[in-house]
Amino acid sequence: MTSTDEAHEKAREIVLAESVWWGWGPAEAHDPLPDSTRLLLARLGIPARPRPPVPLAEVRLPASRLPDPARAALAAVVGDGEVRVDDVARIRHCRGRSTTDLLRLRAGDASAAPDAVIRPADHDEVLGVLRVATREHLVVVPFGGGTSVVGGLAPPERGDRAVVALDLARLDRLGRVDPDSGTAELGAGLRGPRAEALLAEHGLTLGHVPQSWEYATIGGYAATRSSGQASGGYGRFDELVVGLRVATPVGGWELGRAPASAAGPDLRELLLGSEGAFGVITQVVVRVRPLPARRGYEAWSVPDFATGTRLLRSLAAGDLRPTVCRLSDETETVAGLARPTRSGGERGGGAVGCYLVTGYEGDDRAVEQRSAAVAAVLLAGGARRLGAAAGQDWEQGRFRAPYLRDALLDQGIFAETLETAGFWTALPGLYAAVRDALTTTLAAAGLAPVVMCHISHLYATGASLYFTVVCGEGDDPIGSWRAAKAAATDAVVATGGTITHHHAVGTEHRPWLDAEIGDLGVEVLRAVKRTLDPAGILNPGVLVA
Amino acid sequence: MTSTDEAHEKAREIVLAESVWWGWGPAEAHDPLPDSTRLLLARLGIPARPRPPVPLAEVRLPASRLPDPARAALAAVVGDGEVRVDDVARIRHCRGRSTTDLLRLRAGDASAAPDAVIRPADHDEVLGVLRVATREHLVVVPFGGGTSVVGGLAPPERGDRAVVALDLARLDRLGRVDPDSGTAELGAGLRGPRAEALLAEHGLTLGHVPQSWEYATIGGYAATRSSGQASGGYGRFDELVVGLRVATPVGGWELGRAPASAAGPDLRELLLGSEGAFGVITQVVVRVRPLPARRGYEAWSVPDFATGTRLLRSLAAGDLRPTVCRLSDETETVAGLARPTRSGGERGGGAVGCYLVTGYEGDDRAVEQRSAAVAAVLLAGGARRLGAAAGQDWEQGRFRAPYLRDALLDQGIFAETLETAGFWTALPGLYAAVRDALTTTLAAAGLAPVVMCHISHLYATGASLYFTVVCGEGDDPIGSWRAAKAAATDAVVATGGTITHHHAVGTEHRPWLDAEIGDLGVEVLRAVKRTLDPAGILNPGVLVA
Repeated sequence: MTSTDEAHEKAREIVLAESVWWGWGPAEAHDPLPDSTRLLLARLGIPARPRPPVPLAEVRLPASRLPDPARAALAAVVGDGEVRVDDVARIRHCRGRSTTDLLRLRAGDASAAPDAVIRPADHDEVLGVLRVATREHLVVVPFGGGTSVVGGLAPPERGDRAVVALDLARLDRLGRVDPDSGTAELGAGLRGPRAEALLAEHGLTLGHVPQSWEYATIGGYAATRSSGQASGGYGRFDELVVGLRVATPVGGWELGRAPASAAGPDLRELLLGSEGAFGVITQVVVRVRPLPARRGYEAWSVPDFATGTRLLRSLAAGDLRPTVCRLSDETETVAGLARPTRSGGERGGGAVGCYLVTGYEGDDRAVEQRSAAVAAVLLAGGARRLGAAAGQDWEQGRFRAPYLRDALLDQGIFAETLETAGFWTALPGLYAAVRDALTTTLAAAGLAPVVMCHISHLYATGASLYFTVVCGEGDDPIGSWRAAKAAATDAVVATGGTITHHHAVGTEHRPWLDAEIGDLGVEVLRAVKRTLDPAGILNPGVLVA
Repeated sequence: MTSTDEAHEKAREIVLAESVWWGWGPAEAHDPLPDSTRLLLARLGIPARPRPPVPLAEVRLPASRLPDPARAALAAVVGDGEVRVDDVARIRHCRGRSTTDLLRLRAGDASAAPDAVIRPADHDEVLGVLRVATREHLVVVPFGGGTSVVGGLAPPERGDRAVVALDLARLDRLGRVDPDSGTAELGAGLRGPRAEALLAEHGLTLGHVPQSWEYATIGGYAATRSSGQASGGYGRFDELVVGLRVATPVGGWELGRAPASAAGPDLRELLLGSEGAFGVITQVVVRVRPLPARRGYEAWSVPDFATGTRLLRSLAAGDLRPTVCRLSDETETVAGLARPTRSGGERGGGAVGCYLVTGYEGDDRAVEQRSAAVAAVLLAGGARRLGAAAGQDWEQGRFRAPYLRDALLDQGIFAETLETAGFWTALPGLYAAVRDALTTTLAAAGLAPVVMCHISHLYATGASLYFTVVCGEGDDPIGSWRAAKAAATDAVVATGGTITHHHAVGTEHRPWLDAEIGDLGVEVLRAVKRTLDPAGILNPGVLVA
């Protein structure tokens, strides 16, 4: 068994356990903040001070406003036991997993919790729920893994209508598998580990492994245009989608009759990224591949981020993308967050350069050919091999970042991420502008931020940038972060990046959507929403107003 | 110079010459029907009888209905000389280049000709034309190369409003070239040969080479989701589009800020395939690649079409697609239409099997590695090498099919094509059903059809099927073909294919669009059209009603 198999296996076990209500993953998977990380942060002027979440009993939760007739009507569709209005269910479906979401929850603020949680069993029950919601004037928030980091799971204001979280967990079946065509039908509520386990029984893999993999769902991947850590080998999730089944307030809809078509616009691309605002994705037909015979990772040191970026450009332009490819900038390398199992990063004094991880999956020959060709480019460009063990470091810690964030929050230390992408020519300016915006804004609030970045998704024409910010909480961490994020997003728009590469729009990015797609783009989305959701019951305020 | 370079060079010269008004390409590029083809068809019961087009002077053309105020307003935008209402300009912009379009034209029927032809110089002039059209209640038909084969260029009925063909020929500039990002801005009116010539000055290529390449335009490729003969290496045109600039009746619109984004639905995919119904594409930012150092073609014989199909599936599943890959079925192989420079196909009696062409473009090492890997799969699967010369046969004739059609029509012989695509598992049933539908319907009309097919676009999950039909004209070739096409499209829908893989919807496929994308899909397209073209001036009846 390769180390990835072990990591997948471990994640599969973890996912059986319910996550803590105030953070990520089960309690037993949490470790306290390592002393070395604590020391490093203290040296950077970010002292730790214990800040545990409030006890569950102290969480402030408004009374459920679900009217009795609506409750009865919902129960008639999904069954009595699948309409829950108890505190625990509601708190567990309160907001998503952005750091500001967690800060509110940890402080006992569950004011954005839904009034009820309903769990339909299948597509038809989802249609039934939408019919009831239309009749009873309910708001419906489709809920997959609950891992949104952009405010995709809570109406921006508590209005007059009762809000129900539509939890898709029971839509968890593997449908028809067509190995000759390389396609499989996956229920929207399947989480990453379970989807892979079911496909593995057929010798197949989806290969979509975002950091949220342990909890995020197939439907959520589609609704948010997710991109996984192995996007270089398997593609973004939108590239893996062959067909979609959707329940809308005006009826069911299926798309995807062929591998490619010229029958007008590709409407699958209108549902990918629709964030629950146009309909509820209930099933996705995905492209699958044979389980790779081999997986391998190795690590490199490149002289600096600019050199590394140019090297990655060469790889992408030469059609030589590794399955996994992740280049940390100097700060992320020094901070060691690129190797979360080794706190403090590379030591040894002097120029540490930038940490680069490359990974390959496939049959023996493909892995050997590709890794050799990539190595030739990297070595010619001044990269130095750190070896396979260093690569495994990243691999073994690939799902650990949200656990580390919980440990930081436990110590009153703020950590959050944002991401963008741009064409290769725009990338250096984009990188500098976002880093400066984050640093300046948070420093002005007296928070001594550490701003780190990595590139982890390569395209022929450009790449993604993923920023991580660690700083003290200060007096108003939510307000400080909002200001910093706004400044960073303004910088993205000004320097030609996209407002989000794989986190979606939600409520957080909506103020910049017109800058991204134009006023006409926003008008078109509104027209589509009016057509599919004429009563405006679906996820109001998310994606479009 | 490789043979492809020569072919491109020849096409470049051809494109300087204006096409004949009744068919394809300049008169001097036409050859009479080869005697061997004539004999072969006679043996199949399809006798030749001369049927030349009527003289231009005998073409029946309704008087232009463009009102004087509208004409003056248009001239104020584009200049007097670019508003043409003369017969020749109008006849040259009458309908597209389907065989039924040509049959009507050759018989002197130009009843569907636009009332005027206007040629704006740039994006702003296109916006100006749309403003005039809205005010003056004109219908605007965007016109690129005029090569539509699905009725994409003429309103289905001659209504009350005057119709202007918006010819984009003057939007023919190469804009910003970004070699580091591998992108280039191309004017929508650029034809294939000219676009390649301009890019070649920068050492770059687009690599999009559909059969209509000599005349089709960049804007048309985007508006119809074109797919080229080298799609295995370069991708479909929609995969080559990075950004779009569009003029709509409600204003200009630009999309495409990054190589990938999760900022909601990908609205570029709503404009790709919009067929002039949502707006006029004025510029496309495309992905470009370095000019290949090497191009090579070879030909194979595989035992039968089913075996060949399975071999192509193996190649696609193993990520081993050749740049060009084209497998003819038994009938196409025997008829020799797969090798148009050699009429009569392979002789030698007995089982001829199926003709397969593979082509590669890239640097020496990539071409050698890929062709060797593909050859290993093909040889193991029972394919027999026919050699490079046989491959060159196809390559040299790659743009000849529309000229051959003209020669057939000159002899009273009907030839037309249709295409679809399906998942690998569906492909054999799709192939049989479409072939049977065409054969049965045309045979019932007493037309002794020859129905041929090839696969020319491979995907991991499936492939395209491209059918060519040759038969006698009979008394009512247009009516007979309509019936056959309807039966074939019904068969496509029933057996799980797409109604069009790369020819678009136009007016011809519209009756089946709801079967393809559902009633909700059609409603969504209508909502988008109402938003972008509220007065319904753009290409009415095409794509959506």
